Amino acid sequence: MSQRSKIIDCTIRDGGLVNNWDFSIEFVQDLYNGLSGAGVEYMEIGYKNSPKLLKATEPNPWRFLDDNFLKEIFPVKKHTKFSALVDIGRVDPNDILPREQSVLDMIRVACYIREVDKGLELVQMFHDLGYETSLNIMALSSVPEQQLTKAFEMVKESSVDVVYIVDSFGSLDPTDIEHQVKKFKALIPDKQLGIHTHNNMQLAFANTLTAMQNGVTFLDSSVYGMGRAAGNCNTELLVSYIQKPSYELKPVLEVIEKHMLEMRQKWEWGYIIPYMISGVLNEHPRVAMAYRDSADRDKFVDFYDKVTSPEVSLSPATK
Amino acid sequence: MSQRSKIIDCTIRDGGLVNNWDFSIEFVQDLYNGLSGAGVEYMEIGYKNSPKLLKATEPNPWRFLDDNFLKEIFPVKKHTKFSALVDIGRVDPNDILPREQSVLDMIRVACYIREVDKGLELVQMFHDLGYETSLNIMALSSVPEQQLTKAFEMVKESSVDVVYIVDSFGSLDPTDIEHQVKKFKALIPDKQLGIHTHNNMQLAFANTLTAMQNGVTFLDSSVYGMGRAAGNCNTELLVSYIQKPSYELKPVLEVIEKHMLEMRQKWEWGYIIPYMISGVLNEHPRVAMAYRDSADRDKFVDFYDKVTSPEVSLSPATK
Repeated sequence: MSQRSKIIDCTIRDGGLVNNWDFSIEFVQDLYNGLSGAGVEYMEIGYKNSPKLLKATEPNPWRFLDDNFLKEIFPVKKHTKFSALVDIGRVDPNDILPREQSVLDMIRVACYIREVDKGLELVQMFHDLGYETSLNIMALSSVPEQQLTKAFEMVKESSVDVVYIVDSFGSLDPTDIEHQVKKFKALIPDKQLGIHTHNNMQLAFANTLTAMQNGVTFLDSSVYGMGRAAGNCNTELLVSYIQKPSYELKPVLEVIEKHMLEMRQKWEWGYIIPYMISGVLNEHPRVAMAYRDSADRDKFVDFYDKVTSPEVSLSPATK
Repeated sequence: MSQRSKIIDCTIRDGGLVNNWDFSIEFVQDLYNGLSGAGVEYMEIGYKNSPKLLKATEPNPWRFLDDNFLKEIFPVKKHTKFSALVDIGRVDPNDILPREQSVLDMIRVACYIREVDKGLELVQMFHDLGYETSLNIMALSSVPEQQLTKAFEMVKESSVDVVYIVDSFGSLDPTDIEHQVKKFKALIPDKQLGIHTHNNMQLAFANTLTAMQNGVTFLDSSVYGMGRAAGNCNTELLVSYIQKPSYELKPVLEVIEKHMLEMRQKWEWGYIIPYMISGVLNEHPRVAMAYRDSADRDKFVDFYDKVTSPEVSLSPATK
């Protein structure tokens, strides 16, 4: 099983949600070299959204990936392929080159269950341009089974290569993951499956292993776990654990030693009590993230009271 | 299953291996009140070893538990029972009162597989004095199956109440745990089972859940994971996760907010790269702990080279 599995490192893309993509070119280059040396199959180097559509006022090279820029900083591609993520309604088709002219190999489409039709339209466009594609259905823990079954009728007929189980809230446990994988396999037996986890309850690695043992082949992770809020499954754990002759831990350790310790001092992610609480409650971490940004950041009891009080109505958008 | 499960909080006992039991009386009292409020069934308040036998030169109330002292600081016992750990060859029988005169309810015996006979002698003594007992077989990941089978012939005939699976090196994954639990259940079907995990690979909570789902009833944990090296399964995760009407998260959050954040600033435990490496390699964390105490503490690549080089012979005691 693990011979077929592939790691997609999301340090830049998901980690950028921690520091607004404040990554130096040197860091991104070192990370690419480290991941290539480690035998990691893919590096998700950011978002391929449109700065115009997002009305961006400042440049942000990892949030608005540009092929010319990427060719400049990566004149030679090594073992690791590049992927990018896009969001529904934020992609300008004119920004997307055919794959043979692009540095990117894979484009992944993030969407909520209600937007699967729109997601698959984008997938079709990227597929026609020659890219590997995935559909990443977010917030799976809040999707009713019937809605998923209906959406998968479209997915089954589509050109998408990989369909992702995304535990956006870090609220699933290994038993849940096993259940979801079995459901996905039954509904879309011809698609490859992927897993993207968050570490709110310290289950990101365990959930990824469970998915892998049940036949999921695309495994998302981040070096030192860097990703939004509680962060992701750690790349260094996957590389250490998966029995594959091509994987080497040392190049990942070099990146951690040279960059990640300092970055973790400057920016915050990982197992932090308000994120644990939002995971347990199956809530989006944004309320907890705002709390961590306030003067009350360490008032855990107060936070818990607020988010569990029946009088507090979190806006539907936070659900 | 989870209705029968019991949490044993080891913050003082295993956490004391981090800070040489430098806990204030106020902290230990707050922890006891918090655990009682949270519905946690047991608190392991330290070691009941003999200061004389260990030639201790300084007092250490949590390492050398004394009943008079405990009665003084806990004049009234609440919901949570007290347990203590002892090591082979370090117990003075004269130190042990009959249970009805003691604050302690349970005495647990830690031993290596080769000392199971000695461990069971101690168990018998504590059992005869009225205590609940457990046998905690350390370093299970390095025990050959045949040796375990032989030892369990003695265990089966003994008076011990609970037999523990102890992942001393934090090197087991959920699949390993399931395998071990099934083996333990087959060999000693009449004994209750316990699980004690370490978090080197971020699997402590997942391993504890797997054990619970397979019928293990005594679950060790520590508040905020405080325990030697990578620490233990987090008490706050178990209390949040296990469906039991008596468990309440809030009293544990109070302890974390009031004490643990500051303690974590002062002392180090948790997911730290050299501990991850020692877990992956199935090694005792003591080499990594020494490294973290040296000027080279963050030289992860150097550490990895040293512990994986065939030329470095770690002394057999570290294996």
